[in-house]
Order: sequence, then structure tokens, then C-alpha cells
Amino acid sequence: MYNLLKGKKGIIFGALNEHSIAWKTAERAHEEGAKFVLTNAPASIRMGELDVLAKKTGSQIIAADATSIRDLEHLVEKSMDILGGKIDFVLHSIGMSVNVRKGKSYTDPNYDFTTKGWDVSAVSFHKMLNVLYKKEAMNDWGSIVALTYMAAQRVFPDYNDMADNKAYLESVARSFGYFFGRDYKVRVNTISQSPTPTTAGKGVKGFDGFIAYSEKMSPLGNATALECADYTISMFSDLTKKVTLQNLFHDGGFSNMGVSDAVLENFE
Amino acid sequence: MYNLLKGKKGIIFGALNEHSIAWKTAERAHEEGAKFVLTNAPASIRMGELDVLAKKTGSQIIAADATSIRDLEHLVEKSMDILGGKIDFVLHSIGMSVNVRKGKSYTDPNYDFTTKGWDVSAVSFHKMLNVLYKKEAMNDWGSIVALTYMAAQRVFPDYNDMADNKAYLESVARSFGYFFGRDYKVRVNTISQSPTPTTAGKGVKGFDGFIAYSEKMSPLGNATALECADYTISMFSDLTKKVTLQNLFHDGGFSNMGVSDAVLENFE
Amino acid sequence: MYNLLKGKKGIIFGALNEHSIAWKTAERAHEEGAKFVLTNAPASIRMGELDVLAKKTGSQIIAADATSIRDLEHLVEKSMDILGGKIDFVLHSIGMSVNVRKGKSYTDPNYDFTTKGWDVSAVSFHKMLNVLYKKEAMNDWGSIVALTYMAAQRVFPDYNDMADNKAYLESVARSFGYFFGRDYKVRVNTISQSPTPTTAGKGVKGFDGFIAYSEKMSPLGNATALECADYTISMFSDLTKKVTLQNLFHDGGFSNMGVSDAVLENFE
Amino acid sequence: MYNLLKGKKGIIFGALNEHSIAWKTAERAHEEGAKFVLTNAPASIRMGELDVLAKKTGSQIIAADATSIRDLEHLVEKSMDILGGKIDFVLHSIGMSVNVRKGKSYTDPNYDFTTKGWDVSAVSFHKMLNVLYKKEAMNDWGSIVALTYMAAQRVFPDYNDMADNKAYLESVARSFGYFFGRDYKVRVNTISQSPTPTTAGKGVKGFDGFIAYSEKMSPLGNATALECADYTISMFSDLTKKVTLQNLFHDGGFSNMGVSDAVLENFE
Repeated sequence: MYNLLKGKKGIIFGALNEHSIAWKTAERAHEEGAKFVLTNAPASIRMGELDVLAKKTGSQIIAADATSIRDLEHLVEKSMDILGGKIDFVLHSIGMSVNVRKGKSYTDPNYDFTTKGWDVSAVSFHKMLNVLYKKEAMNDWGSIVALTYMAAQRVFPDYNDMADNKAYLESVARSFGYFFGRDYKVRVNTISQSPTPTTAGKGVKGFDGFIAYSEKMSPLGNATALECADYTISMFSDLTKKVTLQNLFHDGGFSNMGVSDAVLENFE
Repeated sequence: MYNLLKGKKGIIFGALNEHSIAWKTAERAHEEGAKFVLTNAPASIRMGELDVLAKKTGSQIIAADATSIRDLEHLVEKSMDILGGKIDFVLHSIGMSVNVRKGKSYTDPNYDFTTKGWDVSAVSFHKMLNVLYKKEAMNDWGSIVALTYMAAQRVFPDYNDMADNKAYLESVARSFGYFFGRDYKVRVNTISQSPTPTTAGKGVKGFDGFIAYSEKMSPLGNATALECADYTISMFSDLTKKVTLQNLFHDGGFSNMGVSDAVLENFE
Repeated sequence: MYNLLKGKKGIIFGALNEHSIAWKTAERAHEEGAKFVLTNAPASIRMGELDVLAKKTGSQIIAADATSIRDLEHLVEKSMDILGGKIDFVLHSIGMSVNVRKGKSYTDPNYDFTTKGWDVSAVSFHKMLNVLYKKEAMNDWGSIVALTYMAAQRVFPDYNDMADNKAYLESVARSFGYFFGRDYKVRVNTISQSPTPTTAGKGVKGFDGFIAYSEKMSPLGNATALECADYTISMFSDLTKKVTLQNLFHDGGFSNMGVSDAVLENFE
Repeated sequence: MYNLLKGKKGIIFGALNEHSIAWKTAERAHEEGAKFVLTNAPASIRMGELDVLAKKTGSQIIAADATSIRDLEHLVEKSMDILGGKIDFVLHSIGMSVNVRKGKSYTDPNYDFTTKGWDVSAVSFHKMLNVLYKKEAMNDWGSIVALTYMAAQRVFPDYNDMADNKAYLESVARSFGYFFGRDYKVRVNTISQSPTPTTAGKGVKGFDGFIAYSEKMSPLGNATALECADYTISMFSDLTKKVTLQNLFHDGGFSNMGVSDAVLENFE
């Protein structure tokens, strides 16, 4: 619509189906003139409809397990080949709690599940940054974004160990973002999005009650996946070059609410 | 460049001269297709070169003392007349400490000066919001931005009572932003900018040492006035519709640094 | 009970009646071996029962309008006379919104009321610090505490302009706390307390619904006035000498909750 | 000195030698009338002088690998036996980065080391809480504290992956603290301490330059290990019953400084 990403090259992790934020971001990046590679874990590619998105946006798919340095190295090298140069933007939209999937409570998890979920949801971001950094794969003033959730700062009981994983992820964004900024003029930020009815989001226990509460608390209502894609585009564009190490709330105002009139009505 | 603000109407407070962030924002808004009214206090208009900017951007100037509800009412009504409808974006870039100007220390101010500085720097934003709200002058999904500085969160000894004024300003953005969001789908945010060598910035004691320190601490270096204008444009655009009640750091990463290697070198 | 404040001398602002946090703090400080002066505005002294507290704790009362530098100078000098030396601890528990009292909404206040409320609720703390600093009235490692509320960070619509006043107050604690720490080894902090059914608290619109909500949100329930007094004693004691410039939440955990199971029940 | 912990029973993790914060806390807890069990990893017990502390405070030592649920179960059961009932306070002072020890950089770690450091430094706290929770081992209004560092919020380049581990640890305090508060009226907090010349602290690269910088930045100077012990005692006492889910900065004010005059001098 605006040519905001004209000539820019990217890698987009984590689109599963048309409800995914990564999916919407890919569509919007395409509209804004970007070229990019789509990637996801092999199992997610089989389960989802990534080929539809690839066709629609004229993109290639490279399968990669984001917990594997080797896969990530292959992904980054191949992407630079396909796109014809260094990378301008990367989206990390990956998260999964084995404890949640297996119905384990936060207070009594299986710690192997905890480790696996942490590796997939948080360390994968470190590994991705490591490979991009080591290969000097990012162009100057490039932009890297990971999606996160406010459970990293405040308690949402049903979010389980994903809260701790997101806290780790956001810390990685700051820690690694320093080196990326200092050495390559690349910015690294996280976007903390409203609860969103994606396939992953709907897996959280009590999601319906929670999203209704969040809607009532937020002065502008919950942010949609498409709105998140728009915001992510702005973070990839040249308009936000000096924003880095930040966790950016994209949530209709929820994060700075103590209570709204609409929520209080239920207590009077 | 992108037509990001095509068809949008705005009011821009506080451009003094070409070093001003508001000036750069007006130039960028013009490039992005917006129409707007320029405003400042009568004394600032006399002192600065606002007519040059008006000519360059095809804008009209309406003088207004931002501490006067009457002036603000006139400004808003007249702006809607000139622009032919409701307002889509507003920039508040106003700040002045009489104590700083008169060389009073933070620990022993003249409290009349304190009150005057608070009224100009912080309450003016409340009054502006009040008039826009009461007159229902904002279009749905409009965007209001005020510029602020991180002294609102952390101590910068030479920033004097502007620290407290900015804390008040940021609180007004949240408090009033709730009502604007709930009732008119309008977002209200503050942008917390790097120290910038504007006419106002250079008035802070020890500015040169401070800006050098800030440059060394920030992984991407200090953000310039023009970069701040770009970021502000993104906040006025339709890409950021669900961001509200936020204080957004635009500072090359300074706000989340504990210490940088470059700063530590001076202590080894 | 523990002799935590044995030999310490203080000034306690703002006890109205037995429901006041300042009242409970005075009782607890007395139990912990402190000597102190009680102070309040002349009108509050007439309205309340401060003489009962003075008798109970063996304290003297000095009336002072906390917005008057002259009154504060008299208070501090007289207190040092009465207590026989410099001051070890001070509690500021003062807040009042004229707009709330007169039923004005946040979006359309009377700005003279706004200014008056700001002066009483926030600038009074600056003036108090100014007088203590100028007179070198604090002992080394003394402790100054002001009470505040989380509306300074997050939106509680009915808290009206007290939100902005508390944001200013907390900023003053940081800004002035720097100079007090650097020059006199004195710490300055704010305690951000749960909603409390004091005379002032109950004046907030919709207080009953709000305190019920807050109780359900807080894992440990709301903190009482007596518990706040206990916490304040710990901040006056020698156990917390290196805590300064902080805003300390004393709220049963509310401040770091996104949502509790008990609140969510109302949305399912 | 004050009998603040008279009759209270505790478990103290992580005392290595007399420089340790946990060591000082044990000494102070003893002075305040507490009984407690000392614990550490077998290797740390061999390397340190825990028996000296045990003799001095009349305590027993139970070796435990804090990453082993079995060891922790044994520890908690045995502690209740020895102390004659449920636990009132627990200190977690455990942290170790294998990457730091082995000289790996943050941007290119060994991920097995990363996992090991995370398990020891952060997941150990979850496991400890898990065992205490499952065994209902805490008395009502008990207090659990873990030590942390501000690298969890802001970048300190040489702190390496301990930054991310501390972010995870602090998230665990909030997440698990909710359940502990709701179900057992137990509070869980972290204390974020100044850089401290403990055996662990001195292992951080460039520690001397960093602690000098931190001293100059903090209005009250860096907090010592003994001062941290005092503060921890206040958090174990009955004076702080309603403080929970908090990260409490004990750092002479560093955390809320933007810059101090003393630091700026080096840039002028």
C-alpha cells in the first residue's frame, strides 16, 4: 500500500495458517514491496498451509528447526542466496509449551517439557540471532522483531511456563540487541501483543474468558493479528531506525490499565 | 515519500526553527501527504521562523497560548475550518522550565516559576486534550503524540523540574488516553526522545557532556530530530492504530542500557 | 515490639483519625521506640482527632500548611527543638483533589482546582524536602517516605487528577532523592499502597466496587493501613539503608498481576 | 539485635564463604533469633567454609543439588524434622554461568553450557518452590526471597547469559508467587542487589571497572553484602507481609539513575 518495504529482504518464522500473526505479516510485507523467505519447523509445515502463503506472496519456503544451529545456518545462507543479498528484517513468531500441551500445571511441571519449551520458545531466538550475527547476514539498519506476551511482566495464571519463556526471550532481545546495535546498526525489539485467537493462542486454557476480559479492559479493544502485522511493518520500515532493545506493547492500552469502567461494572 | 498520511489533517504545536523536532515532523508530514495547521505561542512565533515552515508546507499559522483554554478553543475550531473537517493527528512539543531559564537549582526553586513551568510543559497537554475531547474534534482512530524525556523515569540532575513536569505529562497521556480511547477510538502516546540539540535542548546545563555520554551509552547512538520526526509519522499513520497509553522510547537503546563497553572504558 | 526505631526522631504528616495510615504509623513508631512530632494542616487538625494520638504517643502537635515554606520552616525548626536534634525519619501522607471533592470530571476539570490539588498533594512534598535539605535537618542515613498510589503508573478512571499528582510526587522523590543521597546519605522513597478505607480513600467514587476488585486481584489480598504502617517502619529502620529513589508496591501483589483466577471467574 | 525473626525457621541456600550474601544473611538471621538449615551443592560445600558458619550459628548443613527434585525433597523434609515444623523463610542465592566460567562470549555460547547455567541459576528456584509448595512446607505468611541482578532489566554486556537467567528467575518469582500467595499466604520476592565483591561477583569480566562505575552512579554508593543481609531480614520479618511478586532494588539508587554528576565528570 505504501511501498514501505520496497527492496527489503526478510525472513519470516512461524506462519502456520491464515490466523497466524506471521502469516498476516507476510501478506502485509508482500503488499509493502518486500521479498522474503518463509520458514517453520517441518512438522508445522506439514500441519499448516504455508505453501498457500508462499504461492500468494511469491516466496520460497525453507524448513528449519529453530532449535538447530545447523538448520538455522542453512536457512540463513540459503535465504541470502534466494533473496540476492543480506537480510533487512526478520520476524520470530515461535512459541510452544509442552507442559501446556500435556496438561501439566505450572506448579508441578515435567522439567524435560519445561526445557523443551524454553528451547523452542526462547533459546531459538538466541540461536537465530547468533547465526545472523556470526554470518554478518544483516544489512545496516536492519530490524529484528520477536513476538511476546505481557505474561513476561505480569501474572496470567493460565499462561503457565510460557510466561517465564517470554521473560527470557525479551531479555535475549535486550542482551543480544546491544551487540547487534553496536556492531551492525541493527535494531532488535519485541512486540507484546494482545491475546489473539491464533491456533497457538486458542490453546491457552480459559482463552475465551480471558480474551473477553482483555477486550473490556483495553480502551481500544484487543489488537487483531492484522493490526499486529501492520505494527510489525512499521518496525521493519525505515521510520523506526533508532528504536531498539524495547518491548513494545501493542494491546489497545491494556498494559497501562489498572482497571476500566467496563471491568469494574462486574464488581459493583 | 510513502503517502502514509495522505488525506490526514493535523495540528502541530511547538515548531520554533529548523532544529525543532516539531519542525522536522511538519516537513515529514507534508511529504507524507498530510495537511495541517502550525501553532505556537505568540512570543515563540516572533522569536522563531514559523512563517518559513508555513510557506514551505502550504500551512497556515494560528497563534495560541497553550495554557489558555480560550486560545485552544479558537485554535481547534479554526483548524477544523481551515482543514475542512475533524483532526487526525496532533503533536504536542512544548516544554519550558522558568527555573532553568533563571538559573534556579532543583533543590531551591522559585515555586511560582515551578507552577508556570508545570502549566506550560504539562498542563497545556491536558488543556489541549480537554478542548479536543469536548469539541469532539478528533476523527476515529486519530493519534495524539506528546514529546517527553526519560528524566520522567530516571534521574538526570541537570534536567531540573522538567523531570517532574514530564512525569506529569506522561501521566496525563495515560489518564486522558483512557477516555479518548474508550469514547473516540483515539490513541494517545508519548515519545521519549534522546537528548537533541534543539534550541530548548541546548538550554539544559552541561548539555555537551551529557549528549556525549548518551551517545556512548546508546548502542545505535542518539536519535536525531529527523529520526524522531520519522518515528512520529509512524505513530500518526494507520499502522499503529492499537498502540495507546504508551511511553515509547526513541533513543538508540539508551533506556534499556545498564552500561555500555564504551562508557565503561572511562572507568577502567 | 522490636525497638527498631529506638532513639530515632521523626516528623509525621497527615494523621487525621484512627483510620489514617499516618495514624497507624505513629502508633507503630511509638511502639518501636521513636520520638516524633505530629503535624497536619490547621483545618485537618480541627476536623480530626490528632490530640488523642498525641496523648497516646507522648508527642507534640505542630500545625503546618504543607504548601507554605514558612510553615514548614517553623515546623522543622520547632521539631528539632522539641526532639533535641536532627531528624531521622519523615512520613508524608498528604493528598487531596479539589476536583474530586467538587465532583468535577477528569476530562473537564476546573484548572484552579487542579493547581490547588497539585500543590497540596505533590508540591508539598518538594517544599518539605527543600526545607529539610536547606536546613540540613536530617541525620545521616535518615529515611523519608511519601505514600502514593499505583494510579501514577496505570489508569484507574475514578482516581481523577490524583493520578497525575502522584506521578509528580513520585518523580519528586527520585529527583530530590538524588541530591539527598549524594549530599546527606538520606534515602527518599515512596510506598504505593493498596486502596485503603481511610477517610481520604473512601472519598474516591466507586470505592466499594474498586476495593472488592482489588481484593480479588491480589494474591495476598489488599494491604491494610496497619500493615502499611509496619512496612513504613521497616523503611525507617536501619535495615533498609541502601534502598533509595524507589517506588515500593505494598499491595498484596496487585501491581504485578495481569489477571487472577478470582477476577476471571466474573468473565466466564 | 531486634528479635525480628524470633521463633522463625528457615532454609538458606548458597553460602560459600564469609563474603557471600547468604553467609551474612545467615549470621544476621541468627542474631535476630531464627533457627535455620544451611544448604549448598556438595562441590560448593567442599570448596567453601560452610561448617564454620554452621558452628557459629548452631545450624545443621544438608547438602543438596538444587537442580535435583529428589535432593530438594530430602532437604525440605529433613529441614522440617530438624527445625521441628514448617518453614517461615527461605533464601535462594544461587547462580552460575558455565559460559562465563569457560570464557564463552554471549553472542556465541555453548548451548549445553547455556542450558546448564539456566538450570542451576533459574530453574533451581522453580524446583525449590515446587517442592515447598507440594509438601505444604511453608507456614502461613512465610517469606521466600531470591537474589537477582538488574541485568535482568538492562544491558550489562559482561554479565553474559546470567542476564537472561535472572530475567527467568524473576519471572518465576512472579508466576509461582501468585500460587503461593493465593493458596498459602506466602510471599515471594526477588532482591536486586548492587554488584558485590563476592566470589561469584568477582568472576564477572571487568568487575573492578564496573563496580567503580556503579559506585559513582549510585547516590548512596553500592550496597554491601551485609546491608543486603539486613534488607533480606526485613523481608523475612512480619513487617513486610503484604509485599509479594516484587523485584526490589537494593542498590543505593542506581536503578533509577539516568546519570550522576560524578559519572558525567568523566565526559566533560
